[in-house]
Amino acid sequence: MPDGIDRAVDTAFPVWRYSADGWSAGEDAVAEEIPLTVRLDGEEFVTVVCSPQDTEDLVFGFLAGEGIIASPEDIERIDWDEAAGFADVRLRRRLDGAEADFGRRVIGSCCGRSRQFYFRSDVRTARTSISRVRMRPEECLAAMAELQRRSAEFARTGGVHNAALWSPGRGLIAMRTDIGRHNALDKLLGYCLRRGIPTRDAAIIFSGRISSEVLLKTAKIGAAILIAKSAPTGLALRLAHDLGITAAGFVRGGRMNVYTHPERLGAAGQP
Amino acid sequence: MPDGIDRAVDTAFPVWRYSADGWSAGEDAVAEEIPLTVRLDGEEFVTVVCSPQDTEDLVFGFLAGEGIIASPEDIERIDWDEAAGFADVRLRRRLDGAEADFGRRVIGSCCGRSRQFYFRSDVRTARTSISRVRMRPEECLAAMAELQRRSAEFARTGGVHNAALWSPGRGLIAMRTDIGRHNALDKLLGYCLRRGIPTRDAAIIFSGRISSEVLLKTAKIGAAILIAKSAPTGLALRLAHDLGITAAGFVRGGRMNVYTHPERLGAAGQP
Repeated sequence: MPDGIDRAVDTAFPVWRYSADGWSAGEDAVAEEIPLTVRLDGEEFVTVVCSPQDTEDLVFGFLAGEGIIASPEDIERIDWDEAAGFADVRLRRRLDGAEADFGRRVIGSCCGRSRQFYFRSDVRTARTSISRVRMRPEECLAAMAELQRRSAEFARTGGVHNAALWSPGRGLIAMRTDIGRHNALDKLLGYCLRRGIPTRDAAIIFSGRISSEVLLKTAKIGAAILIAKSAPTGLALRLAHDLGITAAGFVRGGRMNVYTHPERLGAAGQP
Repeated sequence: MPDGIDRAVDTAFPVWRYSADGWSAGEDAVAEEIPLTVRLDGEEFVTVVCSPQDTEDLVFGFLAGEGIIASPEDIERIDWDEAAGFADVRLRRRLDGAEADFGRRVIGSCCGRSRQFYFRSDVRTARTSISRVRMRPEECLAAMAELQRRSAEFARTGGVHNAALWSPGRGLIAMRTDIGRHNALDKLLGYCLRRGIPTRDAAIIFSGRISSEVLLKTAKIGAAILIAKSAPTGLALRLAHDLGITAAGFVRGGRMNVYTHPERLGAAGQP
């Protein structure tokens, strides 16, 4: 049984290039993308569009993030139909209500933290960080530089997102890539879950921006710090504040902006 | 009755800035983001996370893209709960099977174009272009430059996507912005649908990359050309080829790469 879908990560395509010199014809490498349908005990559950690598990590991470599974043992087996892009997941136990909650809005709560969550599964799976880990600013910048160095795929085709797990004293210990930013984080979650990697004092190094969904994925992984290359949103920062996560954006060119819980990175005082 | 949700597009947040000179404290404007739940005749249908502008366009465009409505008249009324982020849609007529198909994979087809589609609703709503419109390379570059000039929001906060409709002889006639790339395109679709704007000879000018979903949204709008700032994926290009859409990526810095149906942009010969 294959342990996931593993097709070529990119494809050659004919291209007509235009510049000030006019047209020229050639070939371009472009990132691949596939629809992957997850069935739970024979029933179609979700279709995600993803890069065709580390798809087993993706399935584990997606189901953990949605609260369908809580440990790798909750999955008895996965049968892959690589050609059609199906993962048939056989569950060992079913978590009550989890599937019914998929995609459902939290309704009726009107006070405190849960106001900020919007999906029921987030309430169950996003964790509040109480880590006292420290990460020096130079470590943040170096981790982002390392992420970009390792992103050979990005350099070749453009348009993919990278997410890595940084661990104190160890640096980047895992990196996952996907054309979908959430998939890259789900793959990382799946990887940590399957290997039992501790994430409490970890940082997520991320090539994209800090949306609320990216922040919630960070909380689902259980990390304390999110180091991202691009801009945050207001909702994401309110979630980061409530969930105890240190959020740093625009981490590039020797600079960064820290928006929440800056003490872990050594910033002090009130802005 | 309000005609959508219209909150501030950005928020001020405290920020700790790190650079080679050390830490400094200040304030940053960040883009807002809200969960918006669409109910159909009282029943929860979907929750999208979006920017809080042009939300009525978003609801119309999303429902049209999913095949739930085919014209603006299919919606009898929308009641907005702005504080909670709900759009209660009352449908005038219900399209058979459309709701049941939402998010469902196309299964069983094994030949030709539909192989490339993955959601059932796409089969119903994505249109093949037969337009013979022409767009000069300089027009493509100018349209992208114009998109970026108009993106004041992007300049201020970063991290939002912009999609505009370009019409021959008229230039950019509408632009929509969202933190979610698909939402920006759904808003444009909703705008065109509500105003009855012809799209057959139009081009979509887009600030992001060409994923399969972006390409399918272009087909749902009914446009002939997609001009995008970033990289394409292989699946998106196969869809563009099959749907008769001209796809150009990396449109920036006076250059662009055309991958499919290049004749509309004046490129000739085989690469």
